[in-house]
Amino acid sequence: MKKIAILGSTGSIGTQTLEVVDQGGFEVIALSANSSVIKLATQALKYRPKMVVLMNSAFLDELEYRLKGTDIKVLAGMEGLIEAVTDPDVELIVNALVGAVGIRPTLEGIRAGKQIALANKETLVAAGELVMQEAQRYGIDILPIDSEHNAIFQALAGEDRSKISRLILTASGGPFRNYSREELKKVTPAQALKHPNWDMGGKITIDSATLMNKGLEVIEAHWLFGIDYDRIDVVVHPQSIVHSLVEFVDSSILAELGLPDMRVPIQYALTYPERRKNFLERLDLVKVGELTFEKPKRDLFPCLELAYQAGRRGGTLPAVMNAANEVAVAKFLNEEISFLEIPELIRRVMEKHQVIDSPDLNQILAADQWARAEIERMVEDVDF
Amino acid sequence: MKKIAILGSTGSIGTQTLEVVDQGGFEVIALSANSSVIKLATQALKYRPKMVVLMNSAFLDELEYRLKGTDIKVLAGMEGLIEAVTDPDVELIVNALVGAVGIRPTLEGIRAGKQIALANKETLVAAGELVMQEAQRYGIDILPIDSEHNAIFQALAGEDRSKISRLILTASGGPFRNYSREELKKVTPAQALKHPNWDMGGKITIDSATLMNKGLEVIEAHWLFGIDYDRIDVVVHPQSIVHSLVEFVDSSILAELGLPDMRVPIQYALTYPERRKNFLERLDLVKVGELTFEKPKRDLFPCLELAYQAGRRGGTLPAVMNAANEVAVAKFLNEEISFLEIPELIRRVMEKHQVIDSPDLNQILAADQWARAEIERMVEDVDF
Repeated sequence: MKKIAILGSTGSIGTQTLEVVDQGGFEVIALSANSSVIKLATQALKYRPKMVVLMNSAFLDELEYRLKGTDIKVLAGMEGLIEAVTDPDVELIVNALVGAVGIRPTLEGIRAGKQIALANKETLVAAGELVMQEAQRYGIDILPIDSEHNAIFQALAGEDRSKISRLILTASGGPFRNYSREELKKVTPAQALKHPNWDMGGKITIDSATLMNKGLEVIEAHWLFGIDYDRIDVVVHPQSIVHSLVEFVDSSILAELGLPDMRVPIQYALTYPERRKNFLERLDLVKVGELTFEKPKRDLFPCLELAYQAGRRGGTLPAVMNAANEVAVAKFLNEEISFLEIPELIRRVMEKHQVIDSPDLNQILAADQWARAEIERMVEDVDF
Repeated sequence: MKKIAILGSTGSIGTQTLEVVDQGGFEVIALSANSSVIKLATQALKYRPKMVVLMNSAFLDELEYRLKGTDIKVLAGMEGLIEAVTDPDVELIVNALVGAVGIRPTLEGIRAGKQIALANKETLVAAGELVMQEAQRYGIDILPIDSEHNAIFQALAGEDRSKISRLILTASGGPFRNYSREELKKVTPAQALKHPNWDMGGKITIDSATLMNKGLEVIEAHWLFGIDYDRIDVVVHPQSIVHSLVEFVDSSILAELGLPDMRVPIQYALTYPERRKNFLERLDLVKVGELTFEKPKRDLFPCLELAYQAGRRGGTLPAVMNAANEVAVAKFLNEEISFLEIPELIRRVMEKHQVIDSPDLNQILAADQWARAEIERMVEDVDF
């Protein structure tokens, strides 16, 4: 029985993680949610963790009420998260938090010697340098849950990483892959929320439509696998069957393929270094029939290029880009800005930022806060 | 410097092996050819092996004449081959022989503790049980050179083979993939010799057109990776970019991809367990654009089914099928029989054969000889 803590257990990755847990072999020590009290309480009553953590303390009373009579400990906020990830019983942390809030729990988990199954993008996008330094110091494997990085991680099993010549991340291209600039101008949140292949949360679905999701993944891949940005390519693959590829110095390419189902990479991260049998639907290549590959349209989807720029410059710039993107996406979903204004706002915030090199956690979080405030100011500006 | 013997050095795989050798890191100890004296002598003068072996002793005088004044030892026939593969200097044997003649050198090489890079299909098709037993006994890795098995071998690096759920061999489908039965009736040797993707020898090119090549590979895969025939699938993939795939119990699929260039799998087998940098053309997925997958047409290309039958029955039947195929292909190339008569003749010889279970080498070679004689009799028969 592997003992796990699931941070963000009520979200899309969190609930799918619990589906994997349902197949047996795991003991849930901790669960956490932002504010979905009812869902968290229901999960707690089913999985009987040692503790639950609620980020939004406004609902703490209700959670305590719902768990009254059980011996489940109720914790709150970042302090609660840290207590959960450093609990001596925990062996592996599934970090499925959304946003910069996910960075500290990853760092504290690493320092406490826990395995990290990572779905929280900010951990590596905003704090990649810091996190990988600590992971190396404590000898911790970061096990990626993202299907792309998980595919690369699988392809690299048994391989000498110094023999990698190129990483090729596949991108579905999102729902607007074939849209013209004119069509992109009029895109609505409802249209953007329809991902062609993957069943994911709202924020990441919009990020897929802008290609920012792939940009964030390029930065994550850089840190996870220690590969220069010049050797990380993105190719649009609308069927999402080839989850990513690794080219080696001898010109062989290894790839991981499968139907788009997040439970496969989640399970791989949870059971690593073993593979465990499951009964998920198998890929039938004949049924799929064809796999196609295209160049990403960098002019129509500038978020990808912004991410390469932020990654190459490094320091606090990726944190700023990521925070600006979060706010911009929220504003798009709230119909305050248009689809094409998302990259435009991010670009402006990035240009205005004074980059700090090799930042510590406080400097990263301060840059994140600065970017959020800055983008609010920009949108309120009469000239925007 | 890895010290190697190349059996069949003047053929397609042999000459490409020498191209890999030209990149450095290898010392050629022995070269062998069937009867291409001039080519063998030229290679010998360039690579200065310790010895050369000529199978056809009719040309022995000429070879000796051409190598006069050098210290290169000239050997002949099977005895010469055995001397070459068991030479104490040899570390790795590249077996690129064509036909059942390749079985004994593999076995003697294994018993002498040499690494085996295998391109000779008969070694595993006709004598798989025997060869794998010996390989296990002597702790020898059989390193496959065939692009399909090499792809699977690469995908399995770092993996627990007990977690394989399925092997998927890709087949180009050959030049007649979309032909009707009427069109197949009229196929000429010249048409069949045009392989759409791979630059290979004549026999294997015809085998690709009949799908017998894929059938032989199914039997090889069974022995190499220890997987039941029910869990080895064949899918037609006309672009020959995905060289084969492995599905694991957790529903992840790993695949090896690349441009169709035999120098890549040859190099992998030669440098294993390392990968070495080369300057071959890289796969550009965007340039390829699409990868397609179809079911093989088992009714129009019955050789595939015959191979599954022979493999499942085992014993001497695969050796008989393989020998019958060799003769049938030769007769087709010689315009003695039609394209559709190839599987028909093989089927008849297989039906007539009295299978011997767990045969020794002599029984395998006798079955091979019986099948060759039998097919000659059948073709001469007035009723055929």
